[in-house]
Amino acid sequence: MIKHSAECRVIYGDTDGFGIVYHANYFRWFEIGRAEFFRALGTSYKEITEKGVHLPISEAYCKFIKALKYDDILLVETKIDGRVKGGMKFDFRIFVKGDETPSATGFTRHACVGDDKKIIRPPKFLLDLVKNSLFSDK
Amino acid sequence: MIKHSAECRVIYGDTDGFGIVYHANYFRWFEIGRAEFFRALGTSYKEITEKGVHLPISEAYCKFIKALKYDDILLVETKIDGRVKGGMKFDFRIFVKGDETPSATGFTRHACVGDDKKIIRPPKFLLDLVKNSLFSDK
Amino acid sequence: MIKHSAECRVIYGDTDGFGIVYHANYFRWFEIGRAEFFRALGTSYKEITEKGVHLPISEAYCKFIKALKYDDILLVETKIDGRVKGGMKFDFRIFVKGDETPSATGFTRHACVGDDKKIIRPPKFLLDLVKNSLFSDK
Amino acid sequence: MIKHSAECRVIYGDTDGFGIVYHANYFRWFEIGRAEFFRALGTSYKEITEKGVHLPISEAYCKFIKALKYDDILLVETKIDGRVKGGMKFDFRIFVKGDETPSATGFTRHACVGDDKKIIRPPKFLLDLVKNSLFSDK
Repeated sequence: MIKHSAECRVIYGDTDGFGIVYHANYFRWFEIGRAEFFRALGTSYKEITEKGVHLPISEAYCKFIKALKYDDILLVETKIDGRVKGGMKFDFRIFVKGDETPSATGFTRHACVGDDKKIIRPPKFLLDLVKNSLFSDK
Repeated sequence: MIKHSAECRVIYGDTDGFGIVYHANYFRWFEIGRAEFFRALGTSYKEITEKGVHLPISEAYCKFIKALKYDDILLVETKIDGRVKGGMKFDFRIFVKGDETPSATGFTRHACVGDDKKIIRPPKFLLDLVKNSLFSDK
Repeated sequence: MIKHSAECRVIYGDTDGFGIVYHANYFRWFEIGRAEFFRALGTSYKEITEKGVHLPISEAYCKFIKALKYDDILLVETKIDGRVKGGMKFDFRIFVKGDETPSATGFTRHACVGDDKKIIRPPKFLLDLVKNSLFSDK
Repeated sequence: MIKHSAECRVIYGDTDGFGIVYHANYFRWFEIGRAEFFRALGTSYKEITEKGVHLPISEAYCKFIKALKYDDILLVETKIDGRVKGGMKFDFRIFVKGDETPSATGFTRHACVGDDKKIIRPPKFLLDLVKNSLFSDK
């Protein structure tokens, strides 16, 4: 199964007055995880939207395990949840580079809609992508 | 039970290229909900932290039901989950002003830590606040 | 001349690890200032865009005079610079409520474009608005 | 003179409802530019702050020349302005990768303060860094 890992670095703009990363910003890294996951599969979210397919978010969850600090280098690991039909679900783990246990875990669920924002079935090219990511031995 | 409702307005900086609010920004409104909830109880999160008590977030979840748009007026309804011990949990509903069904629902869970960032029991003044919010008939 | 003043409150999500507001967030308040300025003139930026007129930003400047802190109540004062033709310029001052000297000053310049993102002359209804704001004795 | 160039990619969270990058987010990229500039000189802003030296921002300016779009790859070019004494000034240019003309230019000015947030003279190690960046032939 493809697990894609994207690298990010914490900036001051990500932190808050408690001296650690503000929680809402983890969801920006989840977005980066999804984007780089699609790129690793040979496409991009931009390309998908240009084909008239959009994946608006329907649910987002994050468990904050260890605080992230300014200048930390993060690895955002992204996998697809293959059990989900009629939309997509991504699972994430955020690691500080070098750490073996994650600093955060979470998921996002997405509907599949057309340019008119109406729900559609995930088109074949997207289902094939998902299948490839699940059965690849990378 | 006290349900506090804070009013916010969507700005361009909250929206994204899909023409609706970017999901991570809902968690900013949840923060505003918590802040105004404490204020409605006669204190403030600032006052609580000045007493050496901090409530770092341990989990955050949001379900995005209806898209929010530029210039929408939002009501963020905040309640405390009275069943939770050893920390705090807040439940949120976001409504577009005038709507009867929520545009989003969610929760945040928080640990209770001291100035040294170590876990502490919620102090009596905080437990009393929670109790007041639950048994008030406001 | 109309000087409009909008009220905002600093949240944790606005602050950074240095314990004060992260500088980029001042530009969000400038946006709120512009929005409330138009509302004070009897219209809204949303209404203006629905007439096919957009005001994308071409320059932004801020001078940070006194640090802003968590839970500060801010007043964002917005005026139009009447000397500017072929676009719009807004001047801002941010005060902590109760302070007589500003915590920040700044400006934003805006082009005037149509729905096709091409430059247009500011339409009459917008010029009239500006004139009203300058010669009103409010 | 050292001109450092950092690479970033535009995410949905950076864009706004007009379909382009929200202006306030350019200042986040300027921050990334400064951070990578210091790293290119063999130190880091984190290391500088650990020596008790902070560079809070006193002015920020950006000129928005060409709109930036979702998934654009950006190069943030950062130089130091060697004429400035008693603080630091950085000049920035943001390019879409492959473009020869910048999409944005700007600057930030910074005071130099100690851990107690009082103004100090830039210490020797920082002045040496600046000198190295100006007279290096990299």
